[in-house]
Amino acid sequence: MRVITLTTDFGVSSPYVAAMKGVILDINPEVMIVDVTHAIAPQDVRQGALVLAEVCHRFPADTIHVAVVDPGVGTQRKILFARIGDQDFIAPDNGLLSAVMRRTPPRAMRQVMASHVWLSEVSATFHGRDIMAPVAAQLSLGFEAKKLGPPVSEMVGLDWPEVHVQGGRIEGSVASIDSFGNLITDITAEALAEASLTEGEPVIGCGPHRTRGIYRTYGDQPQSSLIAVVGSGGYLELAVVGGNASKTLEIEVGAAVTVASS
Amino acid sequence: MRVITLTTDFGVSSPYVAAMKGVILDINPEVMIVDVTHAIAPQDVRQGALVLAEVCHRFPADTIHVAVVDPGVGTQRKILFARIGDQDFIAPDNGLLSAVMRRTPPRAMRQVMASHVWLSEVSATFHGRDIMAPVAAQLSLGFEAKKLGPPVSEMVGLDWPEVHVQGGRIEGSVASIDSFGNLITDITAEALAEASLTEGEPVIGCGPHRTRGIYRTYGDQPQSSLIAVVGSGGYLELAVVGGNASKTLEIEVGAAVTVASS
Amino acid sequence: MRVITLTTDFGVSSPYVAAMKGVILDINPEVMIVDVTHAIAPQDVRQGALVLAEVCHRFPADTIHVAVVDPGVGTQRKILFARIGDQDFIAPDNGLLSAVMRRTPPRAMRQVMASHVWLSEVSATFHGRDIMAPVAAQLSLGFEAKKLGPPVSEMVGLDWPEVHVQGGRIEGSVASIDSFGNLITDITAEALAEASLTEGEPVIGCGPHRTRGIYRTYGDQPQSSLIAVVGSGGYLELAVVGGNASKTLEIEVGAAVTVASS
Repeated sequence: MRVITLTTDFGVSSPYVAAMKGVILDINPEVMIVDVTHAIAPQDVRQGALVLAEVCHRFPADTIHVAVVDPGVGTQRKILFARIGDQDFIAPDNGLLSAVMRRTPPRAMRQVMASHVWLSEVSATFHGRDIMAPVAAQLSLGFEAKKLGPPVSEMVGLDWPEVHVQGGRIEGSVASIDSFGNLITDITAEALAEASLTEGEPVIGCGPHRTRGIYRTYGDQPQSSLIAVVGSGGYLELAVVGGNASKTLEIEVGAAVTVASS
Repeated sequence: MRVITLTTDFGVSSPYVAAMKGVILDINPEVMIVDVTHAIAPQDVRQGALVLAEVCHRFPADTIHVAVVDPGVGTQRKILFARIGDQDFIAPDNGLLSAVMRRTPPRAMRQVMASHVWLSEVSATFHGRDIMAPVAAQLSLGFEAKKLGPPVSEMVGLDWPEVHVQGGRIEGSVASIDSFGNLITDITAEALAEASLTEGEPVIGCGPHRTRGIYRTYGDQPQSSLIAVVGSGGYLELAVVGGNASKTLEIEVGAAVTVASS
Repeated sequence: MRVITLTTDFGVSSPYVAAMKGVILDINPEVMIVDVTHAIAPQDVRQGALVLAEVCHRFPADTIHVAVVDPGVGTQRKILFARIGDQDFIAPDNGLLSAVMRRTPPRAMRQVMASHVWLSEVSATFHGRDIMAPVAAQLSLGFEAKKLGPPVSEMVGLDWPEVHVQGGRIEGSVASIDSFGNLITDITAEALAEASLTEGEPVIGCGPHRTRGIYRTYGDQPQSSLIAVVGSGGYLELAVVGGNASKTLEIEVGAAVTVASS
């Protein structure tokens, strides 16, 4: 059984999601549809890109990931098909696949052009339903990707902030905030290992807040402590034990985070 | 594989939804269950009716749509089965199916009476779980609709506001607001074509707000503009490009919308 | 087809849920995954326990229920497997299964230890994805529960408030509030039957509010009335007809509820 996942900014339980599912099931009633999330902030391509990169590799080989955060719907922006690792992706060409591709370069990219596998009526404002959903359903039935459209070699990227590692000091930022209020940074476990941090516990700073040491898990410090851990996605993360770090510390996405020798 | 969809006012991720799914899967573990939405405002039959009409026809033939917005649960109100087009519907008789039926008259309607296919214990407050879910599951297994109960010819309706088209002027209203804040009116593309709008761009008005012209898609105007498009459901829609029209304009469901020659 | 349910505090549409689903489908792409809820308040083990107990028995025999409300993740707390009735449960040993077990004592409990069926890399902060999801997927493929780890006879419990029945008076409390704002108490229909309430309608009190009589369903009283019914889960419930009792009465979980002869 093939799996199709959906990642959108349509909002939780939007009927737009159901419309896409109806279209998919009308073409292939045997496919398994899984929601990645529909809670991407409206038109926040960057957040969509990060969420997709965080979870897509957990899915089986040949999963088809459909991502629709698409402020340019109906304009000249392309719709992309990409083969990345052993999975397929369909998304507007606006950077939505850029975080996945930073991790794993695509094996093939095509512009989705073959309109005979789209819905017969295509609106100008909902290509997720009228183009991307039927294309994904056709792929799940074995339609060959090479028939979708011509190869493309370039895609629209996003400016991702860089992490600086120098002289025993790492400078990064908060990339996302999870539903517990944990601050997920863009500083990887590898960056922590490679930085020439001197012996002793590093000091992690974010805005006016400081915490010392990087722990295995939240339960390693008392309730309400600010704690740093390497989270389940492999990134340095700041949390308030039993609480909500984002609310307590009043920190938002983009805030600078530093790691320095103590 | 048969599909059963669920449309309720139970709230996102309410365990009441899971109870219905458990009941369905206990009877037919091979059925595909799809959420249309559970975010209908509590007891808002009108909103439920609109959402159902917007998405149901996207699903495969023989899909069974179960809709539960049911303030009269346990009272004398009937539970309806309807065959509409090539799909089945189960819902309380309170107008919840009226928007679907305005689009496509039912081929058959029955009162759901055959209690031997209900749960053995039926509560007075949750017929979605105790009656509608098991009936849908039985239908998905091939139970014949004609055995559900006697035919009915009348059902409870809702007063839908009328759209007036006269002398080059259309008067309608905001029927729903989507998760992007777009204002979806009840003015169809057909009404726009039929109105004797004079040459030139029409002026669309809503409350104190005015916009000129009807565009193909949001990206056809600059960020933050108020724009009118014919949306993906075939209705005239007012949007703020890259923003939230409902919040920005402080417009709610029911607000009057006019289209006039310029 | 086997069913796996998920009950977590990850938040609605959290990508953490999708990560668990990806892991499960990568091991068994034929399993049916159903969300019970992801809207448990963060780290609210008690609420998770109640929701699980409310809906699990609606699912088919051999359903595998995975519950992840896990503030102690990565610490010495155990992960439990339990066979309860004809279903399987996997959860941290923190009381999350205690409400289910109050209703039905477990037939077997084991500590989940067999790390060869976990993901090859196990984070310290997300055992739902790295241990519980793959264990559930393996069970759905027929992996024998007795190979998961050694039997355990004790588990962590929760202090559940007691309901007192004495002299024609019942004292209980509000156990949960549903998405309609209905106040679900811990007073069962059995307790109501067993209490020596004298003839006449009982008086139900909650905070400064009083209502007389226990009705079949909400529609038995006029709009905006405070009404008591025995709800669909078998518990006494206070509702405002067509409204939201929790908001209107300003009552929260834990509030005392009394039933007395009139």
